[in-house]
Amino acid sequence: METSAFITFEGPDGAGKTSVLNALIEHYVVKLGDRLLSTREPGGNKISEAIRAIIMDTDNLEMDARTEALLFAAARRQHLMQTVRPALMAGKIVFSDRYVDSSIAYQGAGRQIGEVAVAEMNHFATEGLTPDLTIYFDIPSEVGLARIHQYRADQVNRLDNEALAFHQRVRHAFLQMVEAQPKRIVLVDANQPFDQVVIQTERVLAERFPTVFS
Amino acid sequence: METSAFITFEGPDGAGKTSVLNALIEHYVVKLGDRLLSTREPGGNKISEAIRAIIMDTDNLEMDARTEALLFAAARRQHLMQTVRPALMAGKIVFSDRYVDSSIAYQGAGRQIGEVAVAEMNHFATEGLTPDLTIYFDIPSEVGLARIHQYRADQVNRLDNEALAFHQRVRHAFLQMVEAQPKRIVLVDANQPFDQVVIQTERVLAERFPTVFS
Repeated sequence: METSAFITFEGPDGAGKTSVLNALIEHYVVKLGDRLLSTREPGGNKISEAIRAIIMDTDNLEMDARTEALLFAAARRQHLMQTVRPALMAGKIVFSDRYVDSSIAYQGAGRQIGEVAVAEMNHFATEGLTPDLTIYFDIPSEVGLARIHQYRADQVNRLDNEALAFHQRVRHAFLQMVEAQPKRIVLVDANQPFDQVVIQTERVLAERFPTVFS
Repeated sequence: METSAFITFEGPDGAGKTSVLNALIEHYVVKLGDRLLSTREPGGNKISEAIRAIIMDTDNLEMDARTEALLFAAARRQHLMQTVRPALMAGKIVFSDRYVDSSIAYQGAGRQIGEVAVAEMNHFATEGLTPDLTIYFDIPSEVGLARIHQYRADQVNRLDNEALAFHQRVRHAFLQMVEAQPKRIVLVDANQPFDQVVIQTERVLAERFPTVFS
């Protein structure tokens, strides 16, 4: 059986992560076919979708940050058991749009629960199943926020400071993870033309997994 | 302001825990009135009820044990923040029918995730908010199961062995917690006439909190 690989894609909102991922899939599916599985949490299973619906219900104003983090971890666990692990066991290449690092950055740093606490709680959910490679798409928070709001960068000052501070904490946490785990996480500068981001990502994948991606 | 107290009631299914709790409330409400809050997870808040509905949906056959444990912890967290903590801050006496110990016994030992792992994950949910007192209603697994099935004890052998082994693991975990935390957890023998169980429980409460319960 061929060797599996679990590759995750991370980054702040507005980094263009999902568009790059779509371009990668189009590129690699020709060679890899069914061996490539591209997924994202909650991943279409009934239980995780039901959990996601609770998280996303904007009526749930009283939701505590730790409740939210536990619900993300529950949805992650189920997606891992129903989708990711079976695919890896079958020797597939799994691309996942977000994984544990997002919870560490968003709930741990963004919502200020604490990165270590969120990482440890997620370890319960994943039993330590760590990606073989993580691509982190980096973008300055102002630029990412401006992209989300479809403003130009020179109008970012209209965004409220709290939103900016939140996103700066998220980015800072991602950058710390890159620094702490340089073998697993590779930074790609997402603040350059789209085609360049795609090319650079393909280069990283080909270097790490030459038999699969080159 | 008067001193608060957080008192939890634990025990295997069939120990009669909920009936005893109802008798206690009838007894103490005369003296304590609104100062006594009796609650149980999910505790009637919208978010925890929605989480509970996912856990209890018998169609969710694929639910992984760790997903279930994370969902219980998420419902617990929300109940703690919306109901238990505000009541304690207001100087109330809070009775809770089940809390973290149940997850340690049922998911940790019963479903064999591991007691330490479940305890640590629940610590994320509670931030270490531990009951001032826990009453554990102990009953032999065969007797508890027979009560649940409304069989007599001499017919317990008709129950399948797996169910019995599960409940024995649950009881064993509770007994280990009593041994490890004798100051917090007091065992009450629930395998005696109902009135005796109530009287013995009242005696424990009066000894521990004389100004409140005697």
